[in-house]
Amino acid sequence: MKVQKAGSTPSGYAEPEHFTGQVRRDRLIMAEAPGCVQTGLVTFEPGARTAWHTHPAGQTLIITAGFGWVQAEGAPRREVASGDAVWIPAGEKHWHGATDTTAMTHLAVTEYIDGVAGNWLELVTDQEYLRG
Amino acid sequence: MKVQKAGSTPSGYAEPEHFTGQVRRDRLIMAEAPGCVQTGLVTFEPGARTAWHTHPAGQTLIITAGFGWVQAEGAPRREVASGDAVWIPAGEKHWHGATDTTAMTHLAVTEYIDGVAGNWLELVTDQEYLRG
Repeated sequence: MKVQKAGSTPSGYAEPEHFTGQVRRDRLIMAEAPGCVQTGLVTFEPGARTAWHTHPAGQTLIITAGFGWVQAEGAPRREVASGDAVWIPAGEKHWHGATDTTAMTHLAVTEYIDGVAGNWLELVTDQEYLRG
Repeated sequence: MKVQKAGSTPSGYAEPEHFTGQVRRDRLIMAEAPGCVQTGLVTFEPGARTAWHTHPAGQTLIITAGFGWVQAEGAPRREVASGDAVWIPAGEKHWHGATDTTAMTHLAVTEYIDGVAGNWLELVTDQEYLRG
């Protein structure tokens, strides 16, 4: 059993190739084999969002604070608030983030397949983001 | 993409064969294949705890409120507080719950192997629980 105490892992900021705006990552804990899941908190400042991307095994998001947007390609943008949970199926092209006026924090629960948790695509343009 | 809004799933109470005391379950969302992870919040009233059990793929716990205890068999009981994360390896016999005086809520992140998330064993006696 491994206990990671609050405050023992420094906060980090997400890389601008795959995110727009200020996005903070607070990693929690990584499973060991045969488990293959990683958990972490991600905080999007207003206007911030992921790039379009997919997950080989899907991803669960649990909104822990604030109010944000999620969108699958070809579907309308949806609003998510604290307490909501989102399931993104394997291979579905999508993005998630804050709204243009409110910050959003979610816990991301992501399983790996052959060591790969996600595949990054192009950034979400301002037009795509605001149009929804 | 599936969005489970807060308030859309009724709270439930855990079965007394596998838990001591009052334990509330608020299920979040279940992955779809090839994902195999389930997430849910579990709230232990003071004195409440799981039975001894194991997980075939391990389990991640993220303490979201309160203060509790976790123990692996043969190791000392450990204290966990809001913001701490715990990794329980596959097959490790353990229990988790509130302390005798304080409630504890954790998010449980559990992967399935062949549809099995956990294997229940005997209840944690008051002597085991309080001795630590």
